[in-house]
Amino acid sequence: MQPQFISFAQTRAYELASGVTAKALFGEGAMLNLVELAPGAIVARHHHPHEQLGVILRGSMTLVVEGEDHVLDEMDAYALPGAVEHEGIAGPRGALVLDVFRPVREDYRAAAGA
Amino acid sequence: MQPQFISFAQTRAYELASGVTAKALFGEGAMLNLVELAPGAIVARHHHPHEQLGVILRGSMTLVVEGEDHVLDEMDAYALPGAVEHEGIAGPRGALVLDVFRPVREDYRAAAGA
Repeated sequence: MQPQFISFAQTRAYELASGVTAKALFGEGAMLNLVELAPGAIVARHHHPHEQLGVILRGSMTLVVEGEDHVLDEMDAYALPGAVEHEGIAGPRGALVLDVFRPVREDYRAAAGA
Repeated sequence: MQPQFISFAQTRAYELASGVTAKALFGEGAMLNLVELAPGAIVARHHHPHEQLGVILRGSMTLVVEGEDHVLDEMDAYALPGAVEHEGIAGPRGALVLDVFRPVREDYRAAAGA
């Protein structure tokens, strides 16, 4: 794999859920996913084998992890091991979140048409 | 490893170079490193076996990769395979950069005192 340089401003967004779009950069064994959530938008409860780390860049989001609510504001961050059940609910102003997955999520690669 | 939740605002910074500080969140096989560079600060030419992905959150940075300059502004992103030589030079307003390393950089874990 060669070094990659992109501008998220110029990157095509793909839909993750109703009111939730994302822009991705796929590395070799990890990926960035810049996720924009409309106010109150929900990423329904789910899990995946991939490790996930993330930071709230703007707005707020409640991350429900194993049934427990974590209210996250700007520059709050999280690290979830693989297989942990979680759900995301954007706050009243929506949220911009930078997610990292390890390894690359091939379902997202397909969705992004990368 | 358990799910982790942190606030970067409350996280202790450690020094990476003159004018360059960072705050880290260590996952299992990847880490976030929130790097603050003073105007004109330099991360000297180096390389490491870890894959590195990153996004400019504020300001600008010139990333010199294999001798070629890449001027990166807000929400520009990059992915560098392991072992690629690179250097970072902050722009005139400095830069706030979110870096991701895979795997975890144990030298940074030691530096952060985590």
